[in-house]
Amino acid sequence: MDSRQRAFIIGAGSGLSAALARRLARENFSVALMARDVAKLRPLMEETGAIAVSGDVGDPKAVEAAFADVQSAFGRFDFVVFNAAYRTRGPIEELDPAEVLTAYLTGAFGGFLVAQAAARRMRAQGSGSLFFTGATASVKAGANSVPFSMEKFALRGLAQALARELAPQNIHVAHFVIDGGISSSWSQPGEGGPADKWLDPDAIADTYLAIHRQHRSAWTWEVELRPWVERF
Amino acid sequence: MDSRQRAFIIGAGSGLSAALARRLARENFSVALMARDVAKLRPLMEETGAIAVSGDVGDPKAVEAAFADVQSAFGRFDFVVFNAAYRTRGPIEELDPAEVLTAYLTGAFGGFLVAQAAARRMRAQGSGSLFFTGATASVKAGANSVPFSMEKFALRGLAQALARELAPQNIHVAHFVIDGGISSSWSQPGEGGPADKWLDPDAIADTYLAIHRQHRSAWTWEVELRPWVERF
Amino acid sequence: MDSRQRAFIIGAGSGLSAALARRLARENFSVALMARDVAKLRPLMEETGAIAVSGDVGDPKAVEAAFADVQSAFGRFDFVVFNAAYRTRGPIEELDPAEVLTAYLTGAFGGFLVAQAAARRMRAQGSGSLFFTGATASVKAGANSVPFSMEKFALRGLAQALARELAPQNIHVAHFVIDGGISSSWSQPGEGGPADKWLDPDAIADTYLAIHRQHRSAWTWEVELRPWVERF
Amino acid sequence: MDSRQRAFIIGAGSGLSAALARRLARENFSVALMARDVAKLRPLMEETGAIAVSGDVGDPKAVEAAFADVQSAFGRFDFVVFNAAYRTRGPIEELDPAEVLTAYLTGAFGGFLVAQAAARRMRAQGSGSLFFTGATASVKAGANSVPFSMEKFALRGLAQALARELAPQNIHVAHFVIDGGISSSWSQPGEGGPADKWLDPDAIADTYLAIHRQHRSAWTWEVELRPWVERF
Repeated sequence: MDSRQRAFIIGAGSGLSAALARRLARENFSVALMARDVAKLRPLMEETGAIAVSGDVGDPKAVEAAFADVQSAFGRFDFVVFNAAYRTRGPIEELDPAEVLTAYLTGAFGGFLVAQAAARRMRAQGSGSLFFTGATASVKAGANSVPFSMEKFALRGLAQALARELAPQNIHVAHFVIDGGISSSWSQPGEGGPADKWLDPDAIADTYLAIHRQHRSAWTWEVELRPWVERF
Repeated sequence: MDSRQRAFIIGAGSGLSAALARRLARENFSVALMARDVAKLRPLMEETGAIAVSGDVGDPKAVEAAFADVQSAFGRFDFVVFNAAYRTRGPIEELDPAEVLTAYLTGAFGGFLVAQAAARRMRAQGSGSLFFTGATASVKAGANSVPFSMEKFALRGLAQALARELAPQNIHVAHFVIDGGISSSWSQPGEGGPADKWLDPDAIADTYLAIHRQHRSAWTWEVELRPWVERF
Repeated sequence: MDSRQRAFIIGAGSGLSAALARRLARENFSVALMARDVAKLRPLMEETGAIAVSGDVGDPKAVEAAFADVQSAFGRFDFVVFNAAYRTRGPIEELDPAEVLTAYLTGAFGGFLVAQAAARRMRAQGSGSLFFTGATASVKAGANSVPFSMEKFALRGLAQALARELAPQNIHVAHFVIDGGISSSWSQPGEGGPADKWLDPDAIADTYLAIHRQHRSAWTWEVELRPWVERF
Repeated sequence: MDSRQRAFIIGAGSGLSAALARRLARENFSVALMARDVAKLRPLMEETGAIAVSGDVGDPKAVEAAFADVQSAFGRFDFVVFNAAYRTRGPIEELDPAEVLTAYLTGAFGGFLVAQAAARRMRAQGSGSLFFTGATASVKAGANSVPFSMEKFALRGLAQALARELAPQNIHVAHFVIDGGISSSWSQPGEGGPADKWLDPDAIADTYLAIHRQHRSAWTWEVELRPWVERF
């Protein structure tokens, strides 16, 4: 096994996952990606040399199978990032309970499944970084955002519990509050304003990498990121 | 329909639900209770005149049926309190995914189902109070408490989103962080210490009632309650 | 000495202090008031039977003298409320350092002086409530509000430290985040909107009294209060 | 004027300021230091090529003079870090009001003075980073820590207000919560435990630099740093 670091990004497809894969590849990491639909990852895989596994992140068997596959290929997990999320919104009276549950299964229970699979392996290794991607709704639940707020609050609860539980095991757990729209993603309308009014995924990736590289004598468990012009 | 206020307490059985039922009965509220096992509520029903409905709080049909039953009896919902919770804990590696999901379904998704049923009726009425019972883990996720932290963080996200969404509809949403063990409940070992080192459920009920009675020009959405000797 | 409770309200003059004095008088408390200018309190004193002492709340000698005077009259302090504040705002570049310091001396250091004088007497008594009035800026520091944010954050730090330090001494410390304008006060423009879009000082006083009356087995150290229509 | 970045560290002397100066010098920054006693900085100045100015950070004239001196030497301020603090503690009854005020003047009002001097210059430049060093007491006020909690809460209020005010002016304001003792500093007893149970000042400096280098499309305003073994 060579000395390259191994990264596994779950919930690939968004601007952030792709930017992170590119950045890690440039830094000489081996990268694996998990997505429901792997076909659309083809260009990214070619560009970065990443491997990919498909599966539903809310399904315990699928998550375990994905980790087993990547373990066969990589042998270890230095850096695992959970990026999956499911967005739906509406007034409380109009929400479909089935969809509220789906949001939780994807964005919170999926995070738990990934965390469990990663923690088992990282404890055996004796080290690792396990990062979760949050949103404004992780810390501020807004009107008409019950499903996403429940999903994101739960994911933050998971990350905070794990930070307390796993840090003394030499596993760095961190949670990122992405407070604003990411450029080139779903949230970017065409309207005007300063050129960098949206979060640049490459800039987000820079901070993920800096936090991954922190020495354990000074670890951060939570980081908010927002554009300079964002109100908060 | 007489002028008595109508209260519905979901997740009945704990010391807090019983204390609240007794206190509300003394204040001349009509009280309904929902629990998985109604048989054990018999003494409380006789003492307070409360009615009871059985059902699984994580089941959409059961929650809707319970609200329909209580509506037939009471005609309205002035005060709805969600007290259900599911406690389980352990190191991340040893958790059973099925139980993590059960915890969420009971203590968080159940809260959503109750909130939806209550909000629909309260919006039609033009008023109401909708309160949720949290715990230390609602705001501080500790080591080895992933399932309860995810459940309680999600419930708090629900309550906060609803506070922002429903307050302008004249519906008072509040979340209570019960930071300590409740006396006469699961958490009270027999050990020594000051007589009131545990939260007295009657004292908790006093504050729930005081917050319910707040004038809407000065509403509180979140209240922490802890014993005078509790460290925080 | 009769059995009436004794209250001392510091920073009297605002709508809240007057409403609290009236409410406490109706509940049969003996009330004392401290203000820089006592003359303007004359009508309130006649209405409520309150006594008054004058002095600058940021001056250690004045605060000690005020407590000594009230102690001579009342013999004890069951309920002390610190309401003083100094508001000033502006862009960081334009602020006058002398005024930033005055804001701190009045609204934060004054709170410390009052807390010290009250804590010494309450510890000797073996009980008491010590409440501090905060604002939106206590928990959310906004643009162009450096002086008020520094003052109010510091006051909250004082209250939180004292809650941890004094609760086990049977002294109930609480901090109130008044999130919105108080009607009949400086902040109320004449504009339209719902009738109760401002915080009614009588409604605020209700909650102060309810928190003062909490049993020590379930104390609250912080309460946010905002109008039903307030965005947060 | 050459293209090197210019940094100014206020409150120099601690392990963190020295580590930051060394790290910035290695990254080719020009570094200036401000301390009450410049004599003790001599070895650090020789090692890093830093210049130094003396003065009391709580004195408006001294702060303005220090900025004027450094401006003469450097011409601009790319990175200003406020590290000054004053620690004192004790039960509320025993605190000396004069010392409580000194703590505020040094660690909070001093931060305001530095912020004002830096903001005026950075707005003229069109850019800059302005960082503040906090502590556990910035977010959690503990028993017997009234003076330090008031000082540190106020400094955080300052930083948060400025983050909202200055970010849209292209000035990056950040606040660091150093949650634990820094090795080689006052707080390190000789006791055992893991080798890196204290925060390594070089590791802290790494994160300050990473945050300074963030692209403005994804800025962080607050970062907690704690050793892997620290309970929180």
